Amino acid sequence: MAKTIQFWFEFASTYSYLSAMRIEAAAQDKGVAIEWHPFLLGPIFADQGWHTSPFNLYPAKGRYMWRDMERLCKARGLPFAKPDPFPQNSLRAARLVLAIEDHRERAAFVRAVFSAEFGAGQNISEDSVLASCLDEAGVHSGVMNRAGDPDIKQALFEQSARANALGLFGAPSFLAGEELFWGDDRLDDALEYASTI
Amino acid sequence: MAKTIQFWFEFASTYSYLSAMRIEAAAQDKGVAIEWHPFLLGPIFADQGWHTSPFNLYPAKGRYMWRDMERLCKARGLPFAKPDPFPQNSLRAARLVLAIEDHRERAAFVRAVFSAEFGAGQNISEDSVLASCLDEAGVHSGVMNRAGDPDIKQALFEQSARANALGLFGAPSFLAGEELFWGDDRLDDALEYASTI
Repeated sequence: MAKTIQFWFEFASTYSYLSAMRIEAAAQDKGVAIEWHPFLLGPIFADQGWHTSPFNLYPAKGRYMWRDMERLCKARGLPFAKPDPFPQNSLRAARLVLAIEDHRERAAFVRAVFSAEFGAGQNISEDSVLASCLDEAGVHSGVMNRAGDPDIKQALFEQSARANALGLFGAPSFLAGEELFWGDDRLDDALEYASTI
Repeated sequence: MAKTIQFWFEFASTYSYLSAMRIEAAAQDKGVAIEWHPFLLGPIFADQGWHTSPFNLYPAKGRYMWRDMERLCKARGLPFAKPDPFPQNSLRAARLVLAIEDHRERAAFVRAVFSAEFGAGQNISEDSVLASCLDEAGVHSGVMNRAGDPDIKQALFEQSARANALGLFGAPSFLAGEELFWGDDRLDDALEYASTI
């Protein structure tokens, strides 16, 4: 079996941006293939009584997170802007990922969306922004119409149900074999583990 | 001014154990002095409506944390046991830290308490356990009687108030100049920053 890591990301998640921008190079170094898994944290958070991001619910944690992101992006040479509103509505972007069949295009689209959102502070619920991201990723613009198709809606629903069943509680999360790793801070450990199983 | 880092820890915090066991060697490598700052997370959590550890309130996060700790301790050659109950009542241990005036003894006692709790699964609210920790750290056993003194109680109260004023929301936290770093995952960044200011 090929060495594989499942990368579970939520477009509304700041730390998912960090992982999305570096996972491909890091996984290649380890000879590990990536499965890109968009999901929605909203339903998982709602189950525990949270109706917005914990970074909004707990202001001290939120203030820290923005400063931490600012420092980390600077250290990694990544542009960083706080999108307004935060968190963004990530539903349509997540559906579009599932509508893109080509693996390379899918990865490029994910990076384009995260860059638009957290690199340029754009609103990723807007069709014009998503259209630019598809274009940047070299995806045929016809994919835009697929976002509303019942099978794509169902596919994202199933992704989020799987995330819940896997015990995911935040993003980014990485699954290697049976081992779950949470947070951009665990990406290297997750890849190391994936490369040994 | 000497290069200094403030290490804010809570004895009930699992990840504080990880930092307590490595901060001295890591700080020495960077030429940074450590201020050991015990505080209580209970009042900070209570202010946001939490009356136990978030790892108990959010079971998926809790399950993950125990597995993550198990993996990290194994990788670092640290013993690991889950104390019962969790979280432990850390009040008396935290007061004892403030009653120890010698810096080296203070650090040794902090390590002894964390090791008893998360290395051996002992109950750190028990006087017999704390007495062993004082002994192991080479602290005069008379310090035990200081834990209930009004000035020590007041000192811990003030520590927790300062933690709150600094915007601390979890442990371990590190303060270097004006920069706050949260979590054992940020210890190296915090020390690196402390060494440059």
